[in-house]
Amino acid sequence: MRPDILLTNISLPAPNNGDGEQPIIADYCIAVQGDTLQGIGPANEFKAVEAKTVINCHGQLALPGLINGHCHAAMTLFRGLADDLSLTDWLHNHIFPAESHYVQPDMVYWCSKLAAAEMILSGTTTVADSYFYEQQAAQAFADAGLRAIAAQGVIDFPAPGVPDPEKKITHAAKFISQWKGHSLIEPAVFAHSPYTCSSETLVAAKELSHSDNTLFFIHTAETEQEAEMIQSPQGDSPVRHLHALGLLDHATVCIHGVWLDEQDMDILAETGAAVVVCPQSNLKLASGIAPLQELLARNIRVGIGTDGVASNNRLDLIREMDICAKIQKMQKREQFDPVAVPADKIVKMATQEGAAVLGLEEKIGQLKVGKKADIILLKLDTAHLQPFHGSDLPLYTAQGADVQTVLINGEVVMQDRKILSFDLAETLEQVRRLAEQVKEGRLKTAT
Amino acid sequence: MRPDILLTNISLPAPNNGDGEQPIIADYCIAVQGDTLQGIGPANEFKAVEAKTVINCHGQLALPGLINGHCHAAMTLFRGLADDLSLTDWLHNHIFPAESHYVQPDMVYWCSKLAAAEMILSGTTTVADSYFYEQQAAQAFADAGLRAIAAQGVIDFPAPGVPDPEKKITHAAKFISQWKGHSLIEPAVFAHSPYTCSSETLVAAKELSHSDNTLFFIHTAETEQEAEMIQSPQGDSPVRHLHALGLLDHATVCIHGVWLDEQDMDILAETGAAVVVCPQSNLKLASGIAPLQELLARNIRVGIGTDGVASNNRLDLIREMDICAKIQKMQKREQFDPVAVPADKIVKMATQEGAAVLGLEEKIGQLKVGKKADIILLKLDTAHLQPFHGSDLPLYTAQGADVQTVLINGEVVMQDRKILSFDLAETLEQVRRLAEQVKEGRLKTAT
Repeated sequence: MRPDILLTNISLPAPNNGDGEQPIIADYCIAVQGDTLQGIGPANEFKAVEAKTVINCHGQLALPGLINGHCHAAMTLFRGLADDLSLTDWLHNHIFPAESHYVQPDMVYWCSKLAAAEMILSGTTTVADSYFYEQQAAQAFADAGLRAIAAQGVIDFPAPGVPDPEKKITHAAKFISQWKGHSLIEPAVFAHSPYTCSSETLVAAKELSHSDNTLFFIHTAETEQEAEMIQSPQGDSPVRHLHALGLLDHATVCIHGVWLDEQDMDILAETGAAVVVCPQSNLKLASGIAPLQELLARNIRVGIGTDGVASNNRLDLIREMDICAKIQKMQKREQFDPVAVPADKIVKMATQEGAAVLGLEEKIGQLKVGKKADIILLKLDTAHLQPFHGSDLPLYTAQGADVQTVLINGEVVMQDRKILSFDLAETLEQVRRLAEQVKEGRLKTAT
Repeated sequence: MRPDILLTNISLPAPNNGDGEQPIIADYCIAVQGDTLQGIGPANEFKAVEAKTVINCHGQLALPGLINGHCHAAMTLFRGLADDLSLTDWLHNHIFPAESHYVQPDMVYWCSKLAAAEMILSGTTTVADSYFYEQQAAQAFADAGLRAIAAQGVIDFPAPGVPDPEKKITHAAKFISQWKGHSLIEPAVFAHSPYTCSSETLVAAKELSHSDNTLFFIHTAETEQEAEMIQSPQGDSPVRHLHALGLLDHATVCIHGVWLDEQDMDILAETGAAVVVCPQSNLKLASGIAPLQELLARNIRVGIGTDGVASNNRLDLIREMDICAKIQKMQKREQFDPVAVPADKIVKMATQEGAAVLGLEEKIGQLKVGKKADIILLKLDTAHLQPFHGSDLPLYTAQGADVQTVLINGEVVMQDRKILSFDLAETLEQVRRLAEQVKEGRLKTAT
């Protein structure tokens, strides 16, 4: 074995022995060859191994890179723009107008790149992103070295980059053809929602994703009012509407899934559609709490996402997991449940099972030989992580800023909290320039 | 003016101009003389000022130090020991047994010191701590340079340091006499709860706090079941029980306040008692969500606390504020409310109004001339805090790890994220030694 990179002195969570204490085992090594995890084991098995690059990870816990199941990365430009508002007010009076003014190709490129930095700095190695000008978002992720499913937006009104709604499907088709086969980026289709897309649009978008063998993302059952907002409903709930249109299958990912009844969940289970929950966004916009226990009980694939920063306001998946676990204990209004969804299950939703949601379970989500080398290393020797008697990732305890080093597809994209894959200072400068325009625009509107 | 310390190049939140955009003003200075904030203003007013120490705070936002209204600091030893359990199971089957085994003077000293480090590293400058062996906790805070209200525990069964419950009041009295007049530490009384203290104990503890002019802390209305657990209840709710005993007044701080009805809240308002909410602890133990809006509507003084790490698992008040704001939007089960408690109000609960809860409003909670110099500086120039269009502290966005430098009582206790006031490595080593004992004990119990 002569790997490109050898990570030494790694700590790993030991297999759970069931007595409640999950020891952390130290002094392991991981070998990376090209884009692939080539070997993992105790240090003595790697004594004779010579690597081109050796990274000493003393006092650091290795975990599979986290998978952010839903994001609108470019919305970093709108961080803090409209806090403490309802979804409808927020969307129609603030976000849609801001997007129609400021979403331009260079905005999407730089603001998605800034989002990539924030995600890498908090341990995310794969993002499922959905936006407009997704061409530029995909380019930003590729340039940042972040693995992404990049889904081009489809919606029934003039949208950034697609002024003529008639061209939305051909636009998405072109986007897909440009990115098929890229090592880091997989293109996909994002139909905004059942209430902003007609049945014809939804069917056409799904046909495109089916014929091009991509994923199909759609905001589904985010608010209690959503069912009433669907034009020409084919069922009395968003899920039944989508099901009647034949849109639910293994390649469909329903985002949010807050307002699901028993029949909706049965349909999701039968059709094999996946769900991505976005707990902080649903809290901040007061949409509700997704019925995660019931989804998991039906063996529906469930991932976890941050949504865009305008409704979060962070892209930190470690924070998202912590809040997800805590809020689920309050989900059943008739009976609070301190167990609800155990912490280790939430961690799986952001790793192994999050990979399965995106159809990437063969490639990522675990630290196993043959998988892509998407690896994060967390500093354990800190005031807030010592001592520690818990499980797996110290979910209720860790923070994004504990992530020291990140490998994606075998590349070291961050080391000692410095982004290596691109010039973060340049990105910050570009985004600041764009933010000044937003500020000036708001001042103009206010006067 | 010849201050001891001059903080230069500071950014500050500008006064809110009401148009939704709160600009951050740059290039301010703060002068500190002894323990006091001596001056604050634009840089040009400080041109002629010569200070012994000048700290360049370029790109950093100055805020008043955060006030953690409720903590059991020494419980850092039990971090992650018993996650995902109900309060009753957690308390009686895990925490009380662990405490009876492991809570010793040196445990309280070192584990409280570790807690002090975590709090300082995330921007807390004052903690209201309640535990046993509080003598050692107070010493740890004093040695760490952390401002504290240190409240000695009173409970009706043999407790760490007070094996004979008959001596609990004299023990607390002695503790108070030892710390009266200290520059950083104010002693107080902590009666554990209405269900672990008899009416006689509660009255005696309150009499002590009254005669010694200290605060009186008590866990109140944490769970729905608490009312049923009170022996010889003097009312049909915890608050009415305490009120009937004459325990509620301006010097009483009720911790948690989750299960309060209208009459309870009217009583709190009439008597002037304060409340400290602990949102993450209440989520993690599935206790519920405090009726914060109703408390604030009655002008009850309300602070925010982390509780101990065993039920959180962090002592990061910035994270606590973020979750508090988000979870409040879900508090009213009949009608979710995205506005609920605005972000800037939550920030006040951790600063100015948190100070008032502890009777420290003349001393701390604001960056104003004449107040004690308890100041934190947050790094703004990061991937996750740029751009920013929001208010005050970027509440939904900032993280504890953004805090770069902390002054308490005029002392620089942390600079560039390094603890200066004590040897953190020594503390970590001591706590690791203690944690090994817990681990061995658990292994012994398991076999």
